[in-house]
Amino acid sequence: MKRFKMIVAYDGTNYNGFARQPNGVTIQETLEEAISKIVQHEVRTLGAGRTDQGVHAKGQCVTFDSDTKVPAEKLAKAINSQLPLDISVKTVEEVSMDFQPRFGAKRKTYRYQILNSQVRDPFLYKYSLQYPYKLDIELMQEAANQMVGKHDFACFCSAGSSVKDTVREIYSIEIKKNEDLIAVDICGNGFLYNMVRIIIGTLLRVNEGKLSTGDIKKIINGKDRQKAGPTVPPQGLTMLDIIYE
Amino acid sequence: MKRFKMIVAYDGTNYNGFARQPNGVTIQETLEEAISKIVQHEVRTLGAGRTDQGVHAKGQCVTFDSDTKVPAEKLAKAINSQLPLDISVKTVEEVSMDFQPRFGAKRKTYRYQILNSQVRDPFLYKYSLQYPYKLDIELMQEAANQMVGKHDFACFCSAGSSVKDTVREIYSIEIKKNEDLIAVDICGNGFLYNMVRIIIGTLLRVNEGKLSTGDIKKIINGKDRQKAGPTVPPQGLTMLDIIYE
Repeated sequence: MKRFKMIVAYDGTNYNGFARQPNGVTIQETLEEAISKIVQHEVRTLGAGRTDQGVHAKGQCVTFDSDTKVPAEKLAKAINSQLPLDISVKTVEEVSMDFQPRFGAKRKTYRYQILNSQVRDPFLYKYSLQYPYKLDIELMQEAANQMVGKHDFACFCSAGSSVKDTVREIYSIEIKKNEDLIAVDICGNGFLYNMVRIIIGTLLRVNEGKLSTGDIKKIINGKDRQKAGPTVPPQGLTMLDIIYE
Repeated sequence: MKRFKMIVAYDGTNYNGFARQPNGVTIQETLEEAISKIVQHEVRTLGAGRTDQGVHAKGQCVTFDSDTKVPAEKLAKAINSQLPLDISVKTVEEVSMDFQPRFGAKRKTYRYQILNSQVRDPFLYKYSLQYPYKLDIELMQEAANQMVGKHDFACFCSAGSSVKDTVREIYSIEIKKNEDLIAVDICGNGFLYNMVRIIIGTLLRVNEGKLSTGDIKKIINGKDRQKAGPTVPPQGLTMLDIIYE
């Protein structure tokens, strides 16, 4: 048996999230069906992270095990031939049987896009939150800097998560502006359920003057989800990149 | 009666082109229905240019006449409230009754995008031609420079066009590379049917060594569509910008 590691990009608009589930078409089952046709046996995949309905990926890492004779370098093209156009396998490589896409990840980077415009954009509405009010990027960056580091981020975790250890480390949060499109890149060793979307909601509360940069540490220390900002919508979020050892 | 000039952006993927026609849903009829609901009478629109099925626009110029009491600065938001998300009115302003969106245009700019990759991209397949072979941007730019100027461009006009005067002026062709995405921006005083797409097909023939940069002037002078390159697919094309006096 061999383990294969794939880098997968997808537009999540038309899927019910990454993880296989009883209702709706998911990225995971669509991948598994395509791979099965190529390797000619049933496969189960593991992903580096679940992405919710409407969330996108440019660098999701997905593994599967197979004894296929098709060489790794030919698998991407073969699997893509069986996939819809909104999912694309970028690369496939063989890895050791103890490689673990989720718990083996050292750094994960997510991007959240905000379209700072009063007018919606036909090319960006599936990939950004439209935010029509003035944005103070410097102020938001200052608040974001208060979040960087190793903390118990229970305040940024949606109810319904079964995770017990809510300590995570955020390595960096960078806010970049390109005309009216703002990208917030968040890099960390792992993320709680909805953590990135709640962080963005909290930064927008700071922008609106409803929270101050000084409140951030208090919110983190208080571990109370109710004190943080709202969970912003999924379509602005993209899983960019996962780094392993 | 007042004339209103709108700047309109749309993702052409799900439309049967700009111009109203008996079959399929078009941008034009979708706009007219939305405007009619706001101004409360039937309207007819005129566009700066027809775009084919699958072609996009960021700066299409569209006019309509109305005696509406709604002020121009409130019309964009009102009309957008009646439009699907893949069409967006960016601005509306009142212009003089002799303003003519098509024949009044002095400069039009189109962009054609080429994804130079062996692997398709879930975010770009609706907005680019995927081209997996090596691209020699300098060579293509050199060939493109041969097209700039005022010429009879009959060689770059698809059969089926009813236009008699095929003389146009190309002001500039700029080829820009951003990682594996190549943008070809073509600016001119007007374009023949499929002209941009045939120009791109011709530049790709030069890239492949099937035509030389020296052939370009001969093709233009020969006025024979058969000697130029193929018409590349519509989805890579976007109407960027129309400039009036």
